[in-house]
Amino acid sequence: MRKTLFLLSTLKVLLIASGSLLPVAIARAQTPAPELPAALRPPAVESPVVHPDRTITFSFKAPAAKQVELSGQFLKNNQPMEKNEAGIWSLTVGPVAPDLYPYNFVVDGVGVADPLNQALFPNERFKPSLVDVPGVQPAIHAELNVPHGSVSHHFYESKTLRRSRPPMIYTPPGYQSGKDAYPVFYLVSGTTDTAETWFRAGRVNFILDNLISQKKAVPMIVVMPYGNMMMGAPMPSSPEVAEMYKVFNDELVNDIMPYVEGSHRVLAERGTRAIAGFSRGGGQSLFAGFMNPDKFAWVGSYSAYLTPEVCGKHFPALTADAAATNDRLKLLWLGVGREDFLYKPAVEFEAYLKEKNIRHTWLETGGGHTWMNARHYLAETLQLFFK
Amino acid sequence: MRKTLFLLSTLKVLLIASGSLLPVAIARAQTPAPELPAALRPPAVESPVVHPDRTITFSFKAPAAKQVELSGQFLKNNQPMEKNEAGIWSLTVGPVAPDLYPYNFVVDGVGVADPLNQALFPNERFKPSLVDVPGVQPAIHAELNVPHGSVSHHFYESKTLRRSRPPMIYTPPGYQSGKDAYPVFYLVSGTTDTAETWFRAGRVNFILDNLISQKKAVPMIVVMPYGNMMMGAPMPSSPEVAEMYKVFNDELVNDIMPYVEGSHRVLAERGTRAIAGFSRGGGQSLFAGFMNPDKFAWVGSYSAYLTPEVCGKHFPALTADAAATNDRLKLLWLGVGREDFLYKPAVEFEAYLKEKNIRHTWLETGGGHTWMNARHYLAETLQLFFK
Repeated sequence: MRKTLFLLSTLKVLLIASGSLLPVAIARAQTPAPELPAALRPPAVESPVVHPDRTITFSFKAPAAKQVELSGQFLKNNQPMEKNEAGIWSLTVGPVAPDLYPYNFVVDGVGVADPLNQALFPNERFKPSLVDVPGVQPAIHAELNVPHGSVSHHFYESKTLRRSRPPMIYTPPGYQSGKDAYPVFYLVSGTTDTAETWFRAGRVNFILDNLISQKKAVPMIVVMPYGNMMMGAPMPSSPEVAEMYKVFNDELVNDIMPYVEGSHRVLAERGTRAIAGFSRGGGQSLFAGFMNPDKFAWVGSYSAYLTPEVCGKHFPALTADAAATNDRLKLLWLGVGREDFLYKPAVEFEAYLKEKNIRHTWLETGGGHTWMNARHYLAETLQLFFK
Repeated sequence: MRKTLFLLSTLKVLLIASGSLLPVAIARAQTPAPELPAALRPPAVESPVVHPDRTITFSFKAPAAKQVELSGQFLKNNQPMEKNEAGIWSLTVGPVAPDLYPYNFVVDGVGVADPLNQALFPNERFKPSLVDVPGVQPAIHAELNVPHGSVSHHFYESKTLRRSRPPMIYTPPGYQSGKDAYPVFYLVSGTTDTAETWFRAGRVNFILDNLISQKKAVPMIVVMPYGNMMMGAPMPSSPEVAEMYKVFNDELVNDIMPYVEGSHRVLAERGTRAIAGFSRGGGQSLFAGFMNPDKFAWVGSYSAYLTPEVCGKHFPALTADAAATNDRLKLLWLGVGREDFLYKPAVEFEAYLKEKNIRHTWLETGGGHTWMNARHYLAETLQLFFK
């Protein structure tokens, strides 16, 4: 390859020097070559660059910007970046604890994703990028050389919402060429997230590929609905939220589940169905799980809660006969971070379950309302489901 | 719902007015409600808004920016946007001819995607957004209420490239729950594109769903490899390009095809395999198609070409026995736009095929090296393959 390039340069010099004396074939290859449009030429910088010591260098070309800052979930506050003569702003931060983090640049007050990074965080509003800082041991979300499942974009017409919906579905390694039926986990994302967030930022596919290959999780199908019911973003403590949760429940039971069970090889029983989610998705999962004790034996809440009022009004049977509930629910799992803005109501919800003698698993961690925590809770629960 | 909201406002007034006189349950629901973080609150503007007269209004919040422009493939040149008191820049353009267009904002010289638009154009470098301008009749790429196929992210370890590769695979409606085997179309995207570009910007799934439901295309599986061989972006007229095309060919034949044929129900014969692509992907498709006459009977090039030198050196049999080639190739399809920066060499390639008596179909259109043209050529060829 190097030799070819050297010959080429030599030929180019010859071409300039001797014109039509060159063989026709070479002249033909050299002369009419159109130049690559600017957008197709290699970029001037690389970003982000994660160094072996877990520091990270971010770079962003913006010659005319007055101020560029780095915003990242590995930082307490935004950090100013510095501009060089070429108009490239850069900053090295860290060392940073191993994890997968959202970040973005703030260019004269406007948040923008890193244009040199393909790993985008799918969201309805802001569009941050993702940077993966590996540790000594590969992370549970790392793409390793193990058998991989696949993750599909599906499209179905929802009778409940009278519009097309775009869920994503993970099928485990061997599903495509196999004949087995699998348990199903419904996994719901949070406010402003899309049906893709559990895939791109949650890395559910790589986490499950790894856990399955380590025999720490049961092979399963994961359905990721688009959780936004187009009814705004009511706080889980407001009465409007129950209306929205009810619509999600209708969509789930009357649209999503029939779609999945009609198109995939699934074990369609209470004991082989789980539901969990992050933030709003956690509230939706608790609500749908409690509304349908005949359909879900495994229920999880990541950084979320329900109020005692909602529980009392919508599923009085949950607490009226705790023994029956405990018999039916194989797992009720709750996780939250101590810095989460929903920490206090989540703790109150746990106290309510305790008071009512509803058996549950409670995990309190560090950190806030972040996808680092969401992934952590996901990896915990995946190892418990269907066992 | 309206009634509930009205009651709520009333209760809030009562709560402020009478404090602890209210029932405990309501007070509890109202008092500790944490406020939604700013990122979760509704956005101040909507963008883009496509009006019934096919004008489009774009809006972008950037109070500190000095200059914001709109760049779009429906414009000849970038257009300045205007700022209001709230710091929101906006511009209405058009009427615009019905199509799906890439666009982005240029904020003090920096190109950024529209943060309020989920439809992103997947690319290794720049990250424009996509705006769909509907016509009187639904476009061939429109998501209509017809049976939908699904589009999957797959992951396999390439022995050729010694790294994991992320192709996408479309399976037609009924594939998941059915038993039939299908013909396979390998569809390759261009320089700086990713394996997702034919899905997001090419809309191959909706185009095929529509053509299949109209019985204008044969149900088929579409495999979208990641065409970047990590060897730079040589011009198709340079000798280096043939080296890169050869690596793609090895990856295709030794890695992608065995992966697809081992995991999907495919008709694995010459007559039921097609390959085509846009830009660099068109060159790769012509090269792999001509290298493997035993494997591909259907070959297409969208806005691309090969040089006579490459053809003569790598597949002399192609032109040495034109009758045999014409007998083997059921379709050799070439399309290019008259404003394409590759128009001239594409025309020269067609002249070469004509001179050598290689049967082919040639489509010259308006427009340039754009995804509007790529989609158009795709829709044309999908109606010809496997018939």
